[in-house]
Amino acid sequence: MSEESSGNTRKVEVVPSPALFPVYYENKNCTVVVIDVFRATSAICAAFESGVDSLIPVANLEEAIEYKKKGFLVGAERNAEIVEGFDFGNSPIGFKDGRFKGETIVLTTTNGTKAIDIAKSASKVVIGAFTNLSAVCDYIEKEDKDVLLLCAGWKDRFNLEDTLFAGAVAEKISQNLRFRNLSDSSIAAIDMYNSAKGDLFEFLGESSHRKRLSKMNLEEDIIYCLTKDKSSIVPILEGDVIVSSK
Amino acid sequence: MSEESSGNTRKVEVVPSPALFPVYYENKNCTVVVIDVFRATSAICAAFESGVDSLIPVANLEEAIEYKKKGFLVGAERNAEIVEGFDFGNSPIGFKDGRFKGETIVLTTTNGTKAIDIAKSASKVVIGAFTNLSAVCDYIEKEDKDVLLLCAGWKDRFNLEDTLFAGAVAEKISQNLRFRNLSDSSIAAIDMYNSAKGDLFEFLGESSHRKRLSKMNLEEDIIYCLTKDKSSIVPILEGDVIVSSK
Repeated sequence: MSEESSGNTRKVEVVPSPALFPVYYENKNCTVVVIDVFRATSAICAAFESGVDSLIPVANLEEAIEYKKKGFLVGAERNAEIVEGFDFGNSPIGFKDGRFKGETIVLTTTNGTKAIDIAKSASKVVIGAFTNLSAVCDYIEKEDKDVLLLCAGWKDRFNLEDTLFAGAVAEKISQNLRFRNLSDSSIAAIDMYNSAKGDLFEFLGESSHRKRLSKMNLEEDIIYCLTKDKSSIVPILEGDVIVSSK
Repeated sequence: MSEESSGNTRKVEVVPSPALFPVYYENKNCTVVVIDVFRATSAICAAFESGVDSLIPVANLEEAIEYKKKGFLVGAERNAEIVEGFDFGNSPIGFKDGRFKGETIVLTTTNGTKAIDIAKSASKVVIGAFTNLSAVCDYIEKEDKDVLLLCAGWKDRFNLEDTLFAGAVAEKISQNLRFRNLSDSSIAAIDMYNSAKGDLFEFLGESSHRKRLSKMNLEEDIIYCLTKDKSSIVPILEGDVIVSSK
């Protein structure tokens, strides 16, 4: 890409860890996609697909307890388990029965809701997962801003599944000439996605998080989280609340 | 890998950016490989190969100026250029003529010497580049400790060339059963290295740093930095000074 054309194209940057967000965040007027494939952002997409009205993400348990006291339905997950005393965790399958239809729910998770919190000063913050991949890509193209693909990771470490999803988005949107200004991290994520896309489940066989979830008999969740385009809803942050963009 | 065996194997973790070093650094008793392929660690390897006796890495220009006042030979690079008033920069080719043979030299660079500074509380800190790839791998295996492959990156951002080298090391040492406890970041770096190793130069064609250096007519440096095993010396940090491990 020439210097001339790069001025007219949008930057597409993968942020490998929430701890690196300040390094990549240069321009408030951008679209940030928060990614926590296993399982917060997959669960948030599932919640909206099941008819939830709105979702309040909170970064810590203290805030979650406050909402619980006020009578809200509150989900809380730490280290892949539901925290005792809360109504649900971050399993996307838990939303299948539509039991929270029309409700406002609250959620705190180990990594995902912290990443949402870190990103919230950006002008657009959306929730991405394989389950709404195409919808997120369409949204990004319509917004036509620089893009930060923020991987929630695991306690600030790089993880495979979030980077794979970031690669899937970068690969898809970079087919549009407007989104060809790729960072090194985007080039790497696309390369990895291309090597993995034939069988994401197999590629993630040795990943730390898949092993963690498999040990807890959460294979059904893993398969759900790696299925593309189950939903056409893009959950979007408005102030402190996530709502459906539709 | 079973839980049982992982207790007996060494962890191999790629640290994608110096800003993430505190996240990955859990155990002082480890081997840290500092990686700045373009060009600080390639230059340091070239300096020792040319017969330099020792090299004092300094993180900032202020310290470099102090050493200059004391009469040391001092190299300083910022944003890929030699800083005015200093004796050399971070071009590995600049050491070819052996002009600093037997000398103690001082060096400060944009990313590499900062990464060395961040790592220095670890029990072993060594300097890695494609030019001493096999020697570094042999050294790691002999040390038989957990391994952190610290990518200097570009101003705390992920970069392709350092991660590729980290992948090359992880791929090579993980052939030894002792080094099979791979982090997600190592799995990703190995995957990328395997996809790139047929032609590293071509793979890096779109990378930010190769473009930066190409614009400055530093193609010869790039080719040098991507050539494997030109040296069997492993530069190693002892206190505040880098010496040859041989």
